[in-house]
Amino acid sequence: MITKLDSSQADFKQRLDTLLAFEASTDDAIESAVSGILADVKKRGDAAVLEYTNRFDRLPNGGATSMAALDVSQEELQAALAAIPEAQRKALEVAAQRVRAFHERQKQELNGFTYTEADGTVLGQRVTPLDRVGIYVPGGKAAYPSSVLMNAIPAHVAGVEEIIMVVPTPDGVKNQMVFAAAAIAGVTRVITIGGAQAVAALAHGTLTIQAVDKIVGPGNAYVAAAKRRVFGVVGIDMIAGPSEILIVCDGTTDPDWVAMDLFSQAEHDELAQAILLCPDADYIARVEASIARLLPTMPRQDVIRTSLGDRGALIKVRDMDEACAIANSIAAEHLEISAVDPQQWADKIRHAGAMFLGRFSSESLGDYCCGPNHVLPTSRTARFSSPLGVYDFQKRSSIIHVSEAGAQTLGKVAAELAYGEGLQAHARSAELRLK
Amino acid sequence: MITKLDSSQADFKQRLDTLLAFEASTDDAIESAVSGILADVKKRGDAAVLEYTNRFDRLPNGGATSMAALDVSQEELQAALAAIPEAQRKALEVAAQRVRAFHERQKQELNGFTYTEADGTVLGQRVTPLDRVGIYVPGGKAAYPSSVLMNAIPAHVAGVEEIIMVVPTPDGVKNQMVFAAAAIAGVTRVITIGGAQAVAALAHGTLTIQAVDKIVGPGNAYVAAAKRRVFGVVGIDMIAGPSEILIVCDGTTDPDWVAMDLFSQAEHDELAQAILLCPDADYIARVEASIARLLPTMPRQDVIRTSLGDRGALIKVRDMDEACAIANSIAAEHLEISAVDPQQWADKIRHAGAMFLGRFSSESLGDYCCGPNHVLPTSRTARFSSPLGVYDFQKRSSIIHVSEAGAQTLGKVAAELAYGEGLQAHARSAELRLK
Repeated sequence: MITKLDSSQADFKQRLDTLLAFEASTDDAIESAVSGILADVKKRGDAAVLEYTNRFDRLPNGGATSMAALDVSQEELQAALAAIPEAQRKALEVAAQRVRAFHERQKQELNGFTYTEADGTVLGQRVTPLDRVGIYVPGGKAAYPSSVLMNAIPAHVAGVEEIIMVVPTPDGVKNQMVFAAAAIAGVTRVITIGGAQAVAALAHGTLTIQAVDKIVGPGNAYVAAAKRRVFGVVGIDMIAGPSEILIVCDGTTDPDWVAMDLFSQAEHDELAQAILLCPDADYIARVEASIARLLPTMPRQDVIRTSLGDRGALIKVRDMDEACAIANSIAAEHLEISAVDPQQWADKIRHAGAMFLGRFSSESLGDYCCGPNHVLPTSRTARFSSPLGVYDFQKRSSIIHVSEAGAQTLGKVAAELAYGEGLQAHARSAELRLK
Repeated sequence: MITKLDSSQADFKQRLDTLLAFEASTDDAIESAVSGILADVKKRGDAAVLEYTNRFDRLPNGGATSMAALDVSQEELQAALAAIPEAQRKALEVAAQRVRAFHERQKQELNGFTYTEADGTVLGQRVTPLDRVGIYVPGGKAAYPSSVLMNAIPAHVAGVEEIIMVVPTPDGVKNQMVFAAAAIAGVTRVITIGGAQAVAALAHGTLTIQAVDKIVGPGNAYVAAAKRRVFGVVGIDMIAGPSEILIVCDGTTDPDWVAMDLFSQAEHDELAQAILLCPDADYIARVEASIARLLPTMPRQDVIRTSLGDRGALIKVRDMDEACAIANSIAAEHLEISAVDPQQWADKIRHAGAMFLGRFSSESLGDYCCGPNHVLPTSRTARFSSPLGVYDFQKRSSIIHVSEAGAQTLGKVAAELAYGEGLQAHARSAELRLK
């Protein structure tokens, strides 16, 4: 059921490219609906948000009659935290503490700088947090409290003062674990709205919702289309594609572990991608046997079967060096290096969202509680982008304080170049500062 | 001719909002043309690039007959550097050296980190350069050698191994100063192509051009539309809006200097925006007089007049504190604080692309040779984004190396949360590592 490839096949590269190809199709009906909702919310504000929310989320008892009714108080969030099972609460708290600790390191790294030149000119870079951000959390089945932690904590650590979380409540059902996570993560306001209408309200602002500076967090096709459209008015995070795992294994890990790690990615959805690279054909056969044996035991076996069948692969490579080269070309969101002395192979990796080294580092540990973020670049975008982090909630400003002496030397250089570019006011502006 | 506002007017906020409002209109004809060019280049590769280049750039002598003819050799770049006037060459070299020095500081700031926990688990973040980037440089009138330096040097400092510059040569005219700047800035390949066809070639690759990981640099509406469309396949920098300057002045700077600084922004194009905030009405009148007197002396006076008339403003504020508050709401690309002890006001600024402090720090010095980048966030995007920098040519990967002991504690937390989210393979994957 799962595709098997061998890197020595003549058409291997082509077959691998076909396997990896994924183009998010844009759906005209969705684009048109989203465009209408954005324009309507921009024009009518709260009234439009309320109407769409009542309609799309099928709110009970005739729906909400005011925006105030859609706000979740801090008391309700704390009550959710108190109401969930103690084991869940403790797990959320441990995860939050570890995620916070890792992201504090990111914050320490980026302090800005200034330096003074011999003539007294000061140059520098200042790092400041965003004022206000919106965090989109999907409702219903795909409501993940871990995503609340992963999106809100970096913003909180960055020093963002207002963190507004929006989460739809289809049929009025509120997810207590999501509310509990919001209570732990430093979210300052929770509003039970979703879809393109929530993105529009966050981007443009309404009477009851102040416009934010950036919107992050996953959502369905409507949310993704809305985020793309408001990009520029506000910042957005990456538009995520299907989740992926790439396992590079030297054949020394229990094959059941590798099979289950492949499942853990495949169970997300039918489009998720799980691939194994290994130089040992016998080992690959053992993983295949583990897959066959373990799959029927999985509650989400239908999703896993489709995902592995359509987009998964077990790939025999020449050696571990070739596995690393292929891993660089795939630039996977999650890369497990399940091998003895994994560091030697990690040193050869240039592109990956997150690297999980050694057989004990299952992706699932990173998904929940190691500390690094689980929002990672998908679809080969790890070639040029990074995990979500504190830096996504900060921005830099350049500082230029030219001394009178500095203006004398810099002014001549600037004027020369400005005249060369035909920008005379630039040149004159520099020359006016010359003695 | 230039709008005058007073912050004490009842409708001030509304009038300011109207003045600042700028929405890049999307032109259906451009979108459709760009969509066709992108698809054609993706399908036919070099042949399509060659055809579009010959047609749109009106290449002489019947046009180029091969892609090789569009490549500019390193010898030709060095010849351009030798051919330009010595004063220009020296100015480019000083500017490049200073830009490099500033960006080296940015690189020093971002080193990644790792730390080891008590149970032996190692967590960290690795910072690596992009492999290959494309730099778009406009041809013809708006060909700015300073932009070559500002886009290529951060990539070079970041450690990008291949820096491919594309620059169209309308009517076959090559800009020697642009080629000279490329020679200085560490560009590894120059191809004389432009427009959407160049963006398509860089994003998707052709037989003679390897696909890049990110495309940066300014361009016309076709280039901007093409960059938006290939975003995701490759990284892109911000789509820049019209350039802006905001001057906060306490009334102690020579009004001619302020007038010329406003001109230096306004001369870019008719949509550029130049605004002065000042608490002193008499001083504003003197700046207005300087504008009237100096404008007829400017070669680009028509552009300046339109820009100042349509989008400029002289704004009387209550005091410098209010000026800073308004500056934060404008979040200008360039903010000059032309005042005695400018630092006291700079401390109140949260949002600006670059801050120019003190009367000697004219924006024009920063545009060319102070060192910080002149590619800056426009249209209020400084609320959430940063100057172009070394960090735009680097990306981060998380490192997770869980020890056997770490897997015992983390595994239980991860399993608890995974079961709570209904992701059983995630839970099992963590549990398999438990003893």
